[in-house]
Formats: sequence, structure tokens, C-alpha cells
Amino acid sequence: MVLNLRALAATLGALLGFLAVALLLPAGIALLYEEAAWKPFVLAALLAGVVGGGLWVLGGRRPHEPGIREGFAIVALAWLVLSLFGALPFVLGDVLSYTDAFFETMSGFTTTGATILGGERTPEIEALPRAYLFWRSLAHWLGGMGIIVLTLAILPILGVGGMQLYKAEVPGPTADKLTPRVRETARRLWLIYVGITALEVLLLLPAMDWFDAVNHAFATMATGGFSTKNSSVGQFGSAYVEWVITVFMLLAGANFALHYRLLHGQWRPVWRDTELRVYLSIVAVATVLITLGIWAPLHAEGDYQTYAELADALRHGAFQTVSIITTTGFGTADYEQWSPLAVGVLFLLFFVGGMAGSTGGGIKVVRHVLLFKNSFRELKQLVHPRAIVPVRLNGRMVSDEILRNVLSFFVLYFGLLGMGTLALSAMEVDLLSAFGAVLSCLGNIGPAFGTMGPAENYAHLPALAKWILALLMMIGRLEIFTVLILLTRTFWRR
Amino acid sequence: MVLNLRALAATLGALLGFLAVALLLPAGIALLYEEAAWKPFVLAALLAGVVGGGLWVLGGRRPHEPGIREGFAIVALAWLVLSLFGALPFVLGDVLSYTDAFFETMSGFTTTGATILGGERTPEIEALPRAYLFWRSLAHWLGGMGIIVLTLAILPILGVGGMQLYKAEVPGPTADKLTPRVRETARRLWLIYVGITALEVLLLLPAMDWFDAVNHAFATMATGGFSTKNSSVGQFGSAYVEWVITVFMLLAGANFALHYRLLHGQWRPVWRDTELRVYLSIVAVATVLITLGIWAPLHAEGDYQTYAELADALRHGAFQTVSIITTTGFGTADYEQWSPLAVGVLFLLFFVGGMAGSTGGGIKVVRHVLLFKNSFRELKQLVHPRAIVPVRLNGRMVSDEILRNVLSFFVLYFGLLGMGTLALSAMEVDLLSAFGAVLSCLGNIGPAFGTMGPAENYAHLPALAKWILALLMMIGRLEIFTVLILLTRTFWRR
Repeated sequence: MVLNLRALAATLGALLGFLAVALLLPAGIALLYEEAAWKPFVLAALLAGVVGGGLWVLGGRRPHEPGIREGFAIVALAWLVLSLFGALPFVLGDVLSYTDAFFETMSGFTTTGATILGGERTPEIEALPRAYLFWRSLAHWLGGMGIIVLTLAILPILGVGGMQLYKAEVPGPTADKLTPRVRETARRLWLIYVGITALEVLLLLPAMDWFDAVNHAFATMATGGFSTKNSSVGQFGSAYVEWVITVFMLLAGANFALHYRLLHGQWRPVWRDTELRVYLSIVAVATVLITLGIWAPLHAEGDYQTYAELADALRHGAFQTVSIITTTGFGTADYEQWSPLAVGVLFLLFFVGGMAGSTGGGIKVVRHVLLFKNSFRELKQLVHPRAIVPVRLNGRMVSDEILRNVLSFFVLYFGLLGMGTLALSAMEVDLLSAFGAVLSCLGNIGPAFGTMGPAENYAHLPALAKWILALLMMIGRLEIFTVLILLTRTFWRR
Repeated sequence: MVLNLRALAATLGALLGFLAVALLLPAGIALLYEEAAWKPFVLAALLAGVVGGGLWVLGGRRPHEPGIREGFAIVALAWLVLSLFGALPFVLGDVLSYTDAFFETMSGFTTTGATILGGERTPEIEALPRAYLFWRSLAHWLGGMGIIVLTLAILPILGVGGMQLYKAEVPGPTADKLTPRVRETARRLWLIYVGITALEVLLLLPAMDWFDAVNHAFATMATGGFSTKNSSVGQFGSAYVEWVITVFMLLAGANFALHYRLLHGQWRPVWRDTELRVYLSIVAVATVLITLGIWAPLHAEGDYQTYAELADALRHGAFQTVSIITTTGFGTADYEQWSPLAVGVLFLLFFVGGMAGSTGGGIKVVRHVLLFKNSFRELKQLVHPRAIVPVRLNGRMVSDEILRNVLSFFVLYFGLLGMGTLALSAMEVDLLSAFGAVLSCLGNIGPAFGTMGPAENYAHLPALAKWILALLMMIGRLEIFTVLILLTRTFWRR
């Protein structure tokens, strides 16, 4: 066998152990609110614990140093196994079918936020016991935690993800890797993550009860987008809440290595970071365009949904811009009712994604920066065929291998988008809805267009479509290569 | 001045001279059918002749050997200047506004086939004098002729296009370059082009008059798509006509260098050509899928337009598949009425395009082949970071420069698609229509989706949108780099 199965078993066993503990938290919520739903969670925790313990024993009861192949396999299997077991409470509690439960849980752990709630079986999100709502948010938050460690500490070692850019030229420990050891890196990033989450909870508390505040803070920081409300964040009808969440979505979509630097007083490298500047510029431009697109004085009456007050247009424009670019997917309005300009800008934001090293998904801003720089280089090269024109990022040269990796990522992204659209089309989903849903799930966003628009949900899809979309969430979340590599012959050959 | 303006003037002058001669042909058609429309054509020919003659004199009355910069400038200006002057008859004859005339002519010369005919001013295509209909088809045919020479003889020298792939590894004259000299290459390719066109006219004659036969053969071989009929090829209602045109679209979308080889009895390299195999495979698979998508027994009654007979479903499926992949854009049905599966497959074909070295536009099959191979290589490279994994095409190694060029092309293509969609959205065009129209024009296809669907036209767009789309047709037709390079500072700097 090419893979060290004992290393795999031990790691997955440990992960299931963590999951078992995590499943007890919503059980606690159920008990707190005197709901009967503590049972399915305790049962699921037991199952996860038993299977996890078994794997741990099979794996030799100790952590292994995984090789490069085990690394890829563990990362891909981690999200799959956690979702397979994390889905159990919904089924044991007779709330959802297993397919729907798996979709919802994968959507949680991948911080996507695409939901099947709102369908026939669960028409009212708010009618669900709080334990289930809390489990959705917790899955987001834990998934976001996992993603930060994955992209900032593990994937760079495997040569995938976007953050490998920052270590490319200088081998060995550098400031950009924060600290040389994965464990220490993880601990520091988590502290930041927990700290910002706590701050958001505090700021939300004046406008909602602590349950809603915690849930929305979890979904914000993970750039997830599950809400405890039928109409998402819009239901609070509070400009204060929307602006607070806008700011924290923006923070969650930014590189956590930069947060770390800021906390250590290193303003200069943060301020000079090209990706950050582009990220903020896109947000600024898109906000202005969407605001113009939904401000009533600029549009004929009745054609589209507009806002008479500039302040309201700006609020909704900023919220929706940040919600989509960070791949959160919270909503304060049904953007499909907006003017073509606003919809067009949002559509483009679906392709952008957050910064590398954030909890945001999608293509990522830094990849767009490099793609743009590379195209410009290519044009220069045509005029001066023999010149060597380097591509630089933050003053450092980017190697051709990395550029080719980024370009390949882009190609695979669109390839998956095409294949996914075809698959959903074959299941009688109309073009715009199919394309939008695949784009949204692959980019870990949540809402899409047409029958999966912000006022709709994913419940009506056939089961096969739900499994495909859940798989695409996972592939997108794990930076594509990490999953697809398992499908190559090379991987399985000595 | 960086550019040799005399070389530019002389070449553009000569081109305008050719245009003047070409404009006399529809004048002849007008006289033949005793239409008054000979006047605007003669007038336009005079204008083109005078301006062209002036430029020729300014350029020193002799052809120049252009440098690399002049090469790029001439290629981009050629299509622009020919369209600016080629639009005149429509305006002088009071048929169209200048904006509409320019759009229609650029659509002709770029072999796009997107039309503004069918709008308020010209509701019936068939009601137009034959001179105008012939001029549209002739623009296609001449544009196709230009493209073949451009992609097979000129762009490879400039390092752009797709066909440069074939000369990359072996410098100097090779069999793939057909003959070492551009002029001789052009002559031979044109002979093939003229020969196949004549054959198609002969095969169409039993089913229509010679005017329609010539026009449709011109539009087929250029993969253009302008028809003399309101309902395009479907209006003939003849399975024979549709199959003949399907076959000739397929020929026109194939590499003309391969046609040349076939005529010289070189079956083996043609049969082994990877791009050809992939091209035919995509056509086969897409035809089967679309046929299944429109065959009545497989669908609930009344939901979508279907065909009871398998033979009819196959005929429409094959026709529409080939029409879109070759970027012709002829229609036999309103595919927007088809099932999501059929529409989804067609949508993906919008991104494929013909073979390199054909008259087809779009991304091109060979680029997809290389993108796929490169992504696969990238996956291998992750498992074996130190291994050197080459990408091969037809047994030869493809250099990293070429791969990067192809990847950059892909990125720029999607970048333009995004910017164009945004621009049209800002002009109140809904998302699907805007995205579809830009995709269709950039890929030189013609029909799109929504308000620019196969049963609609481009007449209702605001003038600015028409200019933008015309520009995108030109950028797409000239392989993007050729036009964008003129916008870089490097190009204009010594």
C-alpha cells in the first residue's frame, strides 16, 4: 500500500474524537433551553467517539508524522469524515434526510452556508430546536478554524493553496510563516480567531440575544453565512447590526497572518501588502457601483428594488459586496430584485473570493493579482521576446512554478464550474440556476441565482445534485488540488 | 515615433484598395437584380479607394517589410479600418445608423454573425435589397480568408494565436508551416478555402437558388453565421441542407493546415492529430447529449421543445452542436426552448471554439487540450515536487513559455468576459443576456441567450453597448494579445 494507513487511522480517529466533544456542545444548548434535541447529539457523539476511538487504536494510539501523500489524504478525508458523522444528529433527530443532513453539514464545515432549510420539511428555520441551529453555526466556526491552520500552516508544506506564495523564495522559517512550527502557528492564529469572534459577540449583544449573537459571530468569522433567522441578517432590520457584521466579515476575509502582524504593531508590511490593497480596493469600487445600482434617484420607478435614502443604499451595497467577496453569503436583501448593474457587480464578486490565509473561499484575491500581473508580463514579452520580465509580489519575485500553479488552479476552477453546470443541467436545473449554484458552492459562498437565489434554498434539488454540490464545496474549500490529486494514478503509484 | 508610419500607411492603403474592389461586387449584384442599391456601394468603393490611394502614396507607393510592432498595429488596424469603411454602404443607402452599420460590418469581417437586422428599422431580413445581404456574406468570407492567413502565416511569426504551438520546438521552415514563405502559404490555403466553398455551393444548389447557396456557403466557410433568411438555415426546412451545412461547418472549424495535408495524401499525421481527435470527440459527445436532451420520449410533454423522431433530434442536435463549437452561429431552432441538458451542453460549447488554424473563433480546442494536460501535470508535480514532468502535444514537448502564453490567454479571455458583462449590466442588460452576448461576441459566435437569444437580435442595445461588443468581436478574433498589446506602455516605448 502506498499510503501509511496507520497514520491515516490515527489522525482521523483523533479528529472524530474532537468531533464527539464538539457534538456535546449543542447537546448542552438543548439542555439549557430544555429541548429534547440533546438526545440525537449525544448519540451522534457516542458514535463518533466509538468509531474515532477504534481508528485511534488501529492507528497505534499515537500521532504519526505524515508523509506528503498521507498529508493530502488526511486533509481530504478530514472534511469528508467530519461531515459524514456531523450529519448524524439531523437524521437521528428526524429533522432531515441523510442526503440533506450531509449537504447541510458539509456546507457548515466548508464555511459555505448553502442551506436546504426553508424547504418542505423545514419551512421555518426559526422553528427548529436551537441545538440544531447552534450545530450549524458551530460547524462553520470549527471549519473556519480548520481552514486557517490548513492554509497558513499545512497546505504551504504540501505546496498548495495560495499561501505557499509567501514562502516560495526564502526556504526555511521566515517571518511570513509566523513561527516555524505548525503547532505554535496554529495556537497563535486560533487565539486571534477566538479573540475577534468574542469581540463581535460583544458588539452584537446590544442588538440581539446572546444566542443569536454567538451564532452570527460564528458564521461571520468563518465567512460561513448560516443564520438563525429565516431572512438572514436582514431580519434584524438594524443598520447597526449590518455594519458591525460588514466590518467583521471584512476582517474574516483578510489574511490572518496580517492580523497577527497588526497585533504585534507591524503596521508597515500590512499597509504595503498588495493583496490587502487590492482586496480593499475591490470592496470600495464594488460598494460604490452597487450603491449606485440600488439608489432610487438613479433608476426608473418600479423596475427594480431600490432605496430612497443614500445611506440605506450604501448600507445594503456594502453589506452585500462584503458578504459575497468574503464568500460569507449573509443577506439583507434579495439581490436578484436589484438592477442589472448591482447584479452584474455581485456576479463578478462571486469569482473573486477572500484573501489567501483568511477563512474566505473562492479563487482568492492574491491569485487574481498574480493572474493580472502575469498577463501583463505576457504582453510585454510579446514586444520583447528575448527579455526576461519577472513577476513580483510585495517586492519579491514570484517563481514560474508558482505562476503555473496559480494559472492551473484557475483553469481547474473553471473546469469544475463547467462540469458541475453540465451535471446539474442534466438534472433539469435551468442554466442560470445551475451555473450559479455550482459557482456558489465551489466558491463556498452560499446563495446563488435563479431557483437557488438569496430568497430560495437548495432543498428542491434532486439528491444526486446535492451530493455533487457538497463534493464541490469540499473540493473548493480544500483548494482543488488537494482533492483532485487523490484521483490521479500518480498518487497511488510507488 | 516608435512605429514606422509609412509602413502602416502603405499596408492599410493597400487593404482599403482591396476593400474598394470588394465593394464593387455587391454593386454588381444590385445591377444584376435591378436594385437601386448599387449607388451606396459604388460611392463607398470610391471613398475607400480615394482614402486608400492617399495612404498608399503617403506610404511611399510600395509595400514595406513591417517590424514586430508594425505587425501588431497593422493586424489590429486592418479589421478596424475595413469595418469603418465597410459600414458605409448601409449608411449611404439609409438602411442603418452608423453604429448599427459598424456593428454589422465588424460582425461580418470578424466572422461573428451577431446581427442587428430584425430590429425596428429592418424587421425583415429578407426584405433588404440583395446587395446588402451579399455584402454581409462577402464580409464573412473575406474575413475568414484573412483569418486563415493571419493565424497560419502571420501570427505565428508574432508569437501569438495558437498555431505558434506547432512551430515552437523546431525553428525554421517545417512541414507544419506548410511552406516557408508567407505569400506561398497564403496562396495555397486560399485555394483550399475557395475550393471547399465552391463545393458547398454546388451541394446546396439542388435545394435553393444560387444567391442563397453562395451566401450560405460564404457564411459557412467563414464560420460566420449571417443568413439571408429571417429564420436562418431553419427556414429551408430541409434535412439535406442542414446536413450539408453541418458537414461544411465542421470542415471550416478544422485546421486548414490539415486540409492541405489531406489533399496531399498525408492521412497519418492528420489522423494522429490530437487536436482533431479532441475536436471530433467533443462534437460527438455533445451531439449525443443534446440529442437526448431534445428527443421527446425522454421528456415530460410540453415542458420543453422536443422532437418525436430520433432522426430529427439528431439532426438538430448535430447542427446546433457544430454551429456553436465552430462559432458559426447558424440556427435551425430556438435552443432556448430546449431542455436544460441541451442548453447546458450548448453553453459549455460557447467556451470551446474551433481548431487553431481554422476560421472558427473562441478559445480553440488546442488550448483546452494544453490546459487540461498542464493541470494534470501540475497534479503530478505535487506528488513528485522534484520531478520534471513535460507536457507533450502530438509527441513533441511544449515549452513552458507556450504553456504560460496559453494560460494567460485563458485568463485574459475570462477577464474580458467579466469586464464586458459588467459594462453591459451597467446599461440595464440583465445578467444572463449580458454575459451571453459578451461570450458570444468575444468568441465570434453570434446568437447568445436571453434578449440576444437565437430568436432575437442585437438591435435593441444602446449604442455604446454595440461599440463595446464590436470591439470585443475584434479583440476575440485577433487572439486578444494582438489588440491588447497596443494598450501597453511597453509597446509605445523605445
